This record gives sequence, structure tokens and C-alpha cells, in this order.
Amino acid sequence: MAEPLRIALAGLGTVGAGVIRLLETNAQLIERRAGRAIEIAAVSARERHKDRGVDMTAYEWDDDTTALAAREDVDVVVELIGGSDGPALTLARNALANRKALVTANKAMIAHHGLELAEAAENAGLALKFEAAVAGGIPVIKGLREGAAANVVERVYGILNGTCNFILSTMEDTGRDFTDVLAEAQARGFAEADPSFDIDGVDAAHKLAILASIAFGSRIDFAPVETTGIRRVLAADIAQADQLGYYIRLIGIAEAADGRLFQRVHPYLVPRDHPLAHVDGATNAVVAEGNFAGRLLFQGAGAGDGPTASAVVADLIDIARWSMNGGEVGAPFSIPVGALEAMPPAASGHRMGKAYLRFIVADRPGVLAEIAAAMRDAGVSIESLIQKGGQAHLGGADVGEPVLVAMVTHHGPERCIAEALRLLEGSESLVEPPVVMHILGE
Amino acid sequence: MAEPLRIALAGLGTVGAGVIRLLETNAQLIERRAGRAIEIAAVSARERHKDRGVDMTAYEWDDDTTALAAREDVDVVVELIGGSDGPALTLARNALANRKALVTANKAMIAHHGLELAEAAENAGLALKFEAAVAGGIPVIKGLREGAAANVVERVYGILNGTCNFILSTMEDTGRDFTDVLAEAQARGFAEADPSFDIDGVDAAHKLAILASIAFGSRIDFAPVETTGIRRVLAADIAQADQLGYYIRLIGIAEAADGRLFQRVHPYLVPRDHPLAHVDGATNAVVAEGNFAGRLLFQGAGAGDGPTASAVVADLIDIARWSMNGGEVGAPFSIPVGALEAMPPAASGHRMGKAYLRFIVADRPGVLAEIAAAMRDAGVSIESLIQKGGQAHLGGADVGEPVLVAMVTHHGPERCIAEALRLLEGSESLVEPPVVMHILGE
Repeated sequence: MAEPLRIALAGLGTVGAGVIRLLETNAQLIERRAGRAIEIAAVSARERHKDRGVDMTAYEWDDDTTALAAREDVDVVVELIGGSDGPALTLARNALANRKALVTANKAMIAHHGLELAEAAENAGLALKFEAAVAGGIPVIKGLREGAAANVVERVYGILNGTCNFILSTMEDTGRDFTDVLAEAQARGFAEADPSFDIDGVDAAHKLAILASIAFGSRIDFAPVETTGIRRVLAADIAQADQLGYYIRLIGIAEAADGRLFQRVHPYLVPRDHPLAHVDGATNAVVAEGNFAGRLLFQGAGAGDGPTASAVVADLIDIARWSMNGGEVGAPFSIPVGALEAMPPAASGHRMGKAYLRFIVADRPGVLAEIAAAMRDAGVSIESLIQKGGQAHLGGADVGEPVLVAMVTHHGPERCIAEALRLLEGSESLVEPPVVMHILGE
Repeated sequence: MAEPLRIALAGLGTVGAGVIRLLETNAQLIERRAGRAIEIAAVSARERHKDRGVDMTAYEWDDDTTALAAREDVDVVVELIGGSDGPALTLARNALANRKALVTANKAMIAHHGLELAEAAENAGLALKFEAAVAGGIPVIKGLREGAAANVVERVYGILNGTCNFILSTMEDTGRDFTDVLAEAQARGFAEADPSFDIDGVDAAHKLAILASIAFGSRIDFAPVETTGIRRVLAADIAQADQLGYYIRLIGIAEAADGRLFQRVHPYLVPRDHPLAHVDGATNAVVAEGNFAGRLLFQGAGAGDGPTASAVVADLIDIARWSMNGGEVGAPFSIPVGALEAMPPAASGHRMGKAYLRFIVADRPGVLAEIAAAMRDAGVSIESLIQKGGQAHLGGADVGEPVLVAMVTHHGPERCIAEALRLLEGSESLVEPPVVMHILGE
């Protein structure tokens, strides 16, 4: 049996503790599969004396992650601190500078600094792996980088945030409102105390930018991801969508066409017969469409200590297998950084599709006519329209409570919808800004 | 750029032609991802002059696969001949003996001779890869062997045969009978002229035996796979199942428990809220349950030249990346053959679950009482019962056309069902042997 692979673990939150628990529980199996043992040489975190549910006394403690990255007895640094910059990034840079392979679950850091780190790893002939950064325990980075490697991938999309999916599918099942379900998700540990990264779509956008780079061979470009979260999704939207044959899901979608990169995270209406429509709770799912493989779907637990640890340790086993004979580790983004294409962002206005539009309007005469005129003037064709309220006035005389007006458009260019909303801007009929959700196409 | 990876291709059916088409179409991309070009050094097939839809004149032709495997200008032999033994096996052995890596799409050969070939490859330090042998273009071998490598996998199951799934889902959609839909599948190229390997479950059993070995670290054991195909599934069964909230799918399922291996290919009733219930047409899907990752689902096109070629070339790209610096190729079954566990087959009688039983009976008095008595005597508890026929007699006096009696049992041991059927053996009330389909549990 070969020498053990020795790792240093920085960051001991739930995922860090999960990695230790996994390495202990499945030690024998991992050794048989990796061809050698994976041993924890040292650990580090902000607070040393905290109950993490695993016995830490067996492992050497380093207060200082700089020292951790420089240890002679370490082959791989596992970064589980989190955050795009700060101590995580410092550690990652130090690890590679000290000729240690790097494994991380840090989607924010990879989305913002992945190319810099990958270039450093490639130049040093070191592995940089981040399976756990996208879709928890689902081996989708591997699936794209290796499994679908023979394909020109034209589109990659999916449900990338378990918190949002839990909230949306619970709203769907119970008819309850967003704030109410968010509070439950927080109480049950499915959402953070500050949930904004999740519910505003930032977390999904990080993951999407990483997937897009690997799928299309393009340089990661996080900034232009069009990102809208789920805060404004109403129980009434979910009910309307259901009546029309759709579920609402937060979808991240990326496409490469004509040398341009389209990336969007948005609540979408998903047709009931689409594979993503049946992805419930905290589950994640990613679809990749290849020119030979066709449509591939990867689905599983998108978060949680067990699944995330599973992905971290899969990366470690890969490194243990690869580096046994000084083997090739491969480019982190499938293609060496220098050969990745810089794709300018695509203008979304040229996109075609159907959309769901929802207005909250003052219940008074002429409101519907005003909206319909804006649609007409902008060239938006309406397929179906629903008006809901205490008293649903379609041009009557009484003024009452605000009323919900929802519609589904015919297939058409997105720029027309944007134009219609521009025409309605500042209208006194609208109680709040309209909500647009696109409908996921085939 | 490094030296090209040079391959020899044996077998030029639809998949072989697909591999050539893929290597030509995506050549540039493959070179960027693999770090070097993949070049076809020579090809071989039974018939040289046959229109395969791709221009073969660019490639050297070897009439003799023995010569192909011995060529000095070849790094990898790609075996696409098919068949568990015969020329395919001879070529595979020759390739490894001549120190060529081996890539194959041949599930029958791997199910029967995979361990012998893997041992030869391991001893020679050569790659043996067979992603295309299971579930077409879906990277499920990689998903289990590498993606889920950190997990003790407790169960692996799925829809492994696209032909059967096409037939069952078409029967479901149209209400047509098996023979009728099979004829359509043959006409449309979804089923072979001799469809028995597919519809009798043998093809799915080959794939299941391969998945089980990789998932559980057990020696491949094809012979004990309990295999039942879909020939006896009636349109009426599908209609009954639908009324009860189930779809019928041919499922391969393998479990490792107490050092024993359970493997079964069988038409199952799949609850409508199960992810496999929505897998339609020729699609395949595999679920693996890991002790840390939880439930992983891999779904995509299970057959066809494009998807299968995608899997073959993914294997080639892996080899091109790995072997660039003389790197580690890893054990074909994740664990070296010598360390795989020999697991004796599990007795299915100890399994617990619900089942669907269907009888075609003579329409005469006392038949239902006879069946019910057998169930009672064997300790089978009935949850629901349906009797269908021209005249549905529940003990009446007229004797008419044969009648269908279907039931769903309560959760209980499978051996009781077997015992009930044994009690009914030879009964003159039964027009044909009963059909048992298990219900897929959580």
C-alpha cells in the first residue's frame, strides 16, 4: 500500500465536521478505493474549543492557517472557511504557493477568483478541485468536466439552491406565504440567519458561473449574471402557475451562442412534464445538453454536511488516485485557463420565450385597459389573463382593495416585455412594480 | 501540445460510426479538453464496403482484429463488436496482451469476463474503461466509481433498458398491447429484429451486474441476477397500476446487505411521486444511495449512436489526460480485482415489500375464494383487489370469458407470496400462470 495522502483541514463548520466524520466512518472503504489512506495531518478554525460533534483531540491543531498551508507533512489543503475573499482566499493562495493541492467547497471564491487559482495550480502542476462548490453531493462538476467532455455543450441549467427550492416547494404544498415559510426554513436549519445570499439568488449565480465556464470552455464571468431571487414570489403566483400547469422554481440557466454567454438566475415557471418540475425540497438538479450525449440530468442533495462532505472526499480520492504515480491532474476548468474563451455577455433582449407577468393594481376603472394597451404598444401578445381580488373589477366603478392581474404571454422576444414594463413605469395604477417570470422552454 | 492519442476502432455498426462522427465533429474541442488530439490509426469490421454514413477512406483498414491489436501505432483499442465472447473477447484479450489500453461499450463481455480483463489491465498498468456499457451517454460508471467514491453505497437501481422503457411508456400513453408496441419499436429502430435480450431483461441484467460490482466493491456475479422481462405485461396491468397510482417500469435493483448481494431485474410498480416514475421513452436513469451523499440520480439517453459515442470518447479523453505523464489509471471496478469481495447471492424470500399480483382466471364460481384462501393460508394480506371481465362474477353461477383478477398486497415478506403461488400451482381455475410485480419502495 502506498503512502497515505495527508490533508490539512481549515474551517470546521458543519461541512468541516462532516468531512472528518466521513473520513473516520468510511476510512477502510476509502483506503481500498483510493489505493491508500487519507489522513488528517492538521486542522484549523477560528474557535478551538467548540463542540462539533466529532472528537478533534486526535488531530493536530494549528491556530494559524498560514502555518497550516506551509506544513511539510501536508499534501492537500482543504479550504472550508467560506467567503469569496479574506482568510479563505489567503489560505488558497498560500496553499498553492507552498505546492499543496487545494480542495474547496467555496463557490463564492471560485466564482470570483477561480481563474487566478486555477492558473496558479496549472503552473505548479497541482490539483485544484471544487466538486462541493456546486450542487452539494451531486458529482456534476465531474459530470461536465469529464463525463460530458466529448460534447459541445449548448446549454446548462438547473435548480442550484436548496434553500430556495425548499421554500418554493413548501409554499406550493401548503399555500403559505414567503416570509412565513422562510421563517420555518430558518428554524429548521434550511436557511441562514441572514438568508440574502440564498434567497436573492447570489449563491445560485456563483454556482451557475462555475458550471458555465466548465460547460462552454469560457472564462468565468460572474458579474454579468442576471440575478433575481424569490423574495417577491407570492403564494398567489404559485397558485396561478399551478392553474396554468406550471411549478415555480429558481432556475439558473446559461447558454453559449455566437461567441456570447448568457447567464441568468431567475424564478421560472417550469412545465409540469419537465424533469425539473418534480425536484422538491432541498434537492438540486442540473441539466446539461450536449451535441452528442443529448440531455443529461444530475440530481441529488444540494446541501447538508453529509452530501457536501461526500463531494469533498471524492475530490480527495481523485487526488489520491491520480498523484500516486505523479500522474496528470488535468485542468480545473477542463481546459487550461490560458485557452478558455473570453465570451462577452449576450443581450437578453434577443431571447425568445413565453413569460408570466403579474401586477398588483389599484382596483379602479381603466386599469386593465392601461395594462393591455402597454402590451399592445410594445408588441406583447397575451395568451391568457387572470384577474383576482376581493371584487374583480374589469372596468367597473367601485374602488376597493388592490387586485392581482396575472398573464401569460405568447412566445415572443423578451425585449417587448421589457418595453411594455417601461411604458407602465410610474403608472399610478400599479401598487408595486410588476413581477416577470420566464417560462422554461424545451 | 503532446503527442496524439492513437486509437484502433473495431466494429463499425451505428456506435462505431457514431464514434468516428463525434471524433471528427468535435475534434478541436476534444483536443483542447484532452490536452492532445485523439487520432484514429486504424479501423476494422466484418464488412469493408458498406455505407456507414461516414467517410472511411481516411482511415487505415485492417481486415484482421488480431493485427489491429498488435499495431505499433496504436495506444488504445476501442472494441465495439459486441457479444460476450467470440471475436470481441479475443480482441479484448489481445489488446491488453499487446499493452494497449481498452475501451469498450460491450456490457455482455464486461458482465461475463470483466474481472478477467480488469485483472489483466491492472497487472499491465493499463486502462480498461466501459462507460458506454451502462446507460448509454449517462456518465454513471464515473458517477459511482469516482463521484460517489467516498460513500458506502447501500442500493443502486434504475431504468437500464431504453427499449423496454419505450415499450412500457408507449403502452401507458396509448393503451395498446405489448406485441403491437414492440412491432412499432422495431419499425422505428428502438428494438432489434430479435428483441429478446432487451425485452427479457438480459441486457438490463448485464448492466446491473456491472453497476453492483462498482457500487458495492463486490465481484461481478451475473448468473444469480433474478431476471424477468416485460413480455407478460398487459395493457390491463398498466391500466390497473395507473388506477392505483403507479407506473410500470422495468427496474434493475441491487442491494448489498450482511455480506450478501441481491440483484433483480423485474417489472416494478413505481409510485407516481418517485423520480423514476417520470422517466419516459428510451431514457435511462440510475439511482445510487450513499451513506453520506444520500440519493443521487443520473438520467439521460440510454442508447443511440450519439449518446453511446459520447461515453466512448469520454473514456478516451480520460485516458488521454491520465496517461499524458504516465499517470495512474485506477482500477476499472474502483477497487483492484483482488480486493473485490465475493458476495454470495441473497435469498429474495427474506425481502419485505408490497406486490401487485395478477391472475387470468376462468369466470366461474369459487375462483376468487380459491385465490383468497391461498393468500390467507400463505399469510399474504391483501390491501386492494380488482376483478375485471365481461361479466365480473364474484362467486356467481355463469361461466364466461376468462377474467382478470388483480390485487395489491400489504407490506410483507416475499416468501409468503411465493408460497401462495405454490399453493395455486396446477389449479384449474388459472388460465395462465400468475404475474407478480413488486412495488418499488422508498
